Amino acid sequence: MPNKKKIAESAISRLSVYLRILEDTVAAGESTVSSQAMASQSGTTAAQVRKDLSLFGSFGRRGLGYSPSDLVSRIRRILGLHRRWKIAVIGLGRVGSALVEHRGFFDRGFDIVALFDTSEFKVGSNLHGLQVHHIDEISRVVHDKKIEVAVLTVPVEAVPDIIDLIRDSGIKGVLNWTPARLTLPDTIEVKNVNMVMELEALSFKLSQRE
Amino acid sequence: MPNKKKIAESAISRLSVYLRILEDTVAAGESTVSSQAMASQSGTTAAQVRKDLSLFGSFGRRGLGYSPSDLVSRIRRILGLHRRWKIAVIGLGRVGSALVEHRGFFDRGFDIVALFDTSEFKVGSNLHGLQVHHIDEISRVVHDKKIEVAVLTVPVEAVPDIIDLIRDSGIKGVLNWTPARLTLPDTIEVKNVNMVMELEALSFKLSQRE
Repeated sequence: MPNKKKIAESAISRLSVYLRILEDTVAAGESTVSSQAMASQSGTTAAQVRKDLSLFGSFGRRGLGYSPSDLVSRIRRILGLHRRWKIAVIGLGRVGSALVEHRGFFDRGFDIVALFDTSEFKVGSNLHGLQVHHIDEISRVVHDKKIEVAVLTVPVEAVPDIIDLIRDSGIKGVLNWTPARLTLPDTIEVKNVNMVMELEALSFKLSQRE
Repeated sequence: MPNKKKIAESAISRLSVYLRILEDTVAAGESTVSSQAMASQSGTTAAQVRKDLSLFGSFGRRGLGYSPSDLVSRIRRILGLHRRWKIAVIGLGRVGSALVEHRGFFDRGFDIVALFDTSEFKVGSNLHGLQVHHIDEISRVVHDKKIEVAVLTVPVEAVPDIIDLIRDSGIKGVLNWTPARLTLPDTIEVKNVNMVMELEALSFKLSQRE
């Protein structure tokens, strides 16, 4: 994989979009797809599509376009979706509970295998067939179930109390839904999702028009 | 604002992060901040910070750093946060309901002023002091309340039935929490949030390490 370290987050999210378009193309029984068709469906330019795909050494043939099934398997491998990932959800408020029920994760190779909370009402109960553990048990459960990724959906006030437990749990990556900036070592990958920041990106775009 | 059209989404999300760091700096009573300090708190490089800020013509002085309060007001203006935005939430499942209660939106200038659903159990009820309207009423309510942005949190299956109503409602921007690709004209800004794509970005990062 050339330029392994230089791929921008924006390119990665475009690959996720291309993957969905290409899977639809395969499902529709088509054997080729043009960069122009991918661009128009993903809201970008054909030049951008070609540039993104060339990062991974995939260079459709002029006039013939790309093979969608070939691209699907390449992109799935690039995104780490050729294997399954074991996930824990930490914090079973409304967002956390909604994630547990979200079929889309399973369909993409993400298996939610453990749940954590601190509420005495939730710990010990079952949600979608999974027992809710107390966060104090995270190291043992991560080890036993070989969990790699934690999805953090606790209230922001709860983060300081549990961040050390997460750091020492053996987790390799955290999808952080809280507005907190997590203080974790570089050995743990963090991807921040911030509902307010998403709205800020939209208000930026709308402001540009005024 | 130079290079108005060329600012990448990744730069915008870094600005949102800088804004939070700078507000903490102001709150701590500090009168200068270095690009290095901003970089270490935001997980980027000082060169990247300087480049991002230079896009907006803000060039701290060598050895003196930046004025955090000046940067806060510049970034707030760039992101369109110097004014308030009126928001509708469409779809009051768990994610939609959680958003309605999220204080962070109000604190950032986003006022949730209308709610929409289609469920007969929800339409007509009240949630956090707001009446739930049927989606069929969206054009009237958007006009009456001068709503600019819709946050779309309906199940993906519901999108085809309501997308035309949204398109014709007068809404200027949509924050799309569904996995659907929305077919809306270019006059409506769409920002996609996709829970599965966020996990894909994390699985990409983790795969790079193997």
